[in-house]
Amino acid sequence: MQQQAFTGVMSPVLTPFDKDLRPDGRKLAQFCKSLLQEGCTALSPFGTNSEANSMSVEERIELLEQIVASGVDARKLMPGTGSCALTDAVRATKHAVEKGCGGVLLLPPFYYKNMSDEGFYRFFAEVIERVGDARLKVYLYHIPPQTIQGLSHDLIERLIKAYPKAVVGIKDSSGDWKNTEAMLKRFPGFGIFAGSEDFLLANMRSGGVGCITATGNVNARMIRRLFDGWQKPDADRLQAEISAIRKTIQRHPMIPSMKSLRAAWTGDAQWLNVRPPFLPLTMEQGKALAADVAKLGLKAPELVPAE
Amino acid sequence: MQQQAFTGVMSPVLTPFDKDLRPDGRKLAQFCKSLLQEGCTALSPFGTNSEANSMSVEERIELLEQIVASGVDARKLMPGTGSCALTDAVRATKHAVEKGCGGVLLLPPFYYKNMSDEGFYRFFAEVIERVGDARLKVYLYHIPPQTIQGLSHDLIERLIKAYPKAVVGIKDSSGDWKNTEAMLKRFPGFGIFAGSEDFLLANMRSGGVGCITATGNVNARMIRRLFDGWQKPDADRLQAEISAIRKTIQRHPMIPSMKSLRAAWTGDAQWLNVRPPFLPLTMEQGKALAADVAKLGLKAPELVPAE
Repeated sequence: MQQQAFTGVMSPVLTPFDKDLRPDGRKLAQFCKSLLQEGCTALSPFGTNSEANSMSVEERIELLEQIVASGVDARKLMPGTGSCALTDAVRATKHAVEKGCGGVLLLPPFYYKNMSDEGFYRFFAEVIERVGDARLKVYLYHIPPQTIQGLSHDLIERLIKAYPKAVVGIKDSSGDWKNTEAMLKRFPGFGIFAGSEDFLLANMRSGGVGCITATGNVNARMIRRLFDGWQKPDADRLQAEISAIRKTIQRHPMIPSMKSLRAAWTGDAQWLNVRPPFLPLTMEQGKALAADVAKLGLKAPELVPAE
Repeated sequence: MQQQAFTGVMSPVLTPFDKDLRPDGRKLAQFCKSLLQEGCTALSPFGTNSEANSMSVEERIELLEQIVASGVDARKLMPGTGSCALTDAVRATKHAVEKGCGGVLLLPPFYYKNMSDEGFYRFFAEVIERVGDARLKVYLYHIPPQTIQGLSHDLIERLIKAYPKAVVGIKDSSGDWKNTEAMLKRFPGFGIFAGSEDFLLANMRSGGVGCITATGNVNARMIRRLFDGWQKPDADRLQAEISAIRKTIQRHPMIPSMKSLRAAWTGDAQWLNVRPPFLPLTMEQGKALAADVAKLGLKAPELVPAE
């Protein structure tokens, strides 16, 4: 199995939209730089919490162009390139590889339910074969809360065996630690990310490589402190602290909640915008949330000045 | 409420793919003509059984161009134009309206779960407003087996009230007759299609307008006979007959099963091709299925000669 490139604390990067709900590439690129400064070791633009599936492939490709053009190191990017449409998944993945991205995060074809492992295998295999590039590093995206049908361990094993250099890791967003634990045992050396910081410490203690977590958008600093110090005596306390903050943020639906927090911290109301079916929170709600998490030790990060 | 234009037996048109899994527009256009001759009153290309969500928006737009250019009356077309991505749904819907399609079939943003009615409302409203064309006729697509979250009756009512000229009907693919029945009572005059011929007779007796059914791809003639004669004494017998045929076809997964039947009937193995995660059946399986449905009275239709 190929050594995978990513470790640490990664964030599915929130996508800023303007008042007409067009993605704001300039602001997104700036935000990527902020997150890397706040503590993220790498970034996963176009994840679930990026509202990636609310955007067309063209929009995602254009945004990735802008992020890379702004000077963000493409090797630190693992963009989500999945789509139910084979051709879209291939197109986005190929583009990410050509831009030099360190990896891609690949959803199964999520419209479909009760598919066979063989069917899912052929989907992933077809994407890998069609991209046909030795630089491709795929992170499978297991997220049954959204896709309902997840990725079985037999399927994962088969993909690793068939494409040992391309299939290098997984994001486990099942919220089920037993599933992560079973994968860690069965696939040593595979790049297994917890899908939330709630399981970061457990994942590190069992051989995982980190977490890719929504709240990296607002709490990268503290989550990173736990990642860097997971073997230190205060690790369990840090874990409890960041989990408490996550719980507070989750009082509202995750995406609008995190956006409202960034809006409150920056004073920039544009951060409140979400594409439907999500509903925006208000600046007042963001401020209230900022006050609540401040009590738990999460303060506004020092912001990277806009370029 | 605006009188809606479609009634009868409609089919989500199977999409033929070539050996490289590229959609074959010439063959699709030809097939649309066959289905209209076999008994379909109108067609819904790019439905679930068309593998629409396995295709990019570009592919769907190009195929619709080819269908219309081939001479199929656009007023008889209700293409599926839904997407989780707001911009894709708008683009495909606008294109369908511009091509003169009689309506569109619109999915909710299906990646997302546990969304509010308000969020779904804003999604549909945003698509309708952005298309901004008085010719737009939307058929909502309620299909919880695929989307998990369906469309509540309160949401439907709100959309009808807000856009009485645009929101004119629904396809109910819940497989739950009680849901269809409740809508028929609550929304008189709304164009309510059963999502399967199993409920065609019940739907017609309760004020519905027909069915949009996968098996229209292979059994339009008999289903149409029931639609035309639903008030005749032999209607219950016809209903039992077509339901028995459906059950036989469903012995295999629906899409490959119907494709194998068309392959067996035409001798054209290209019909077997499916995009992953679906798995193709073999010509032999198609022939066995053809023999089984023949025993139930379903013979190969007279085929429209290729142009």
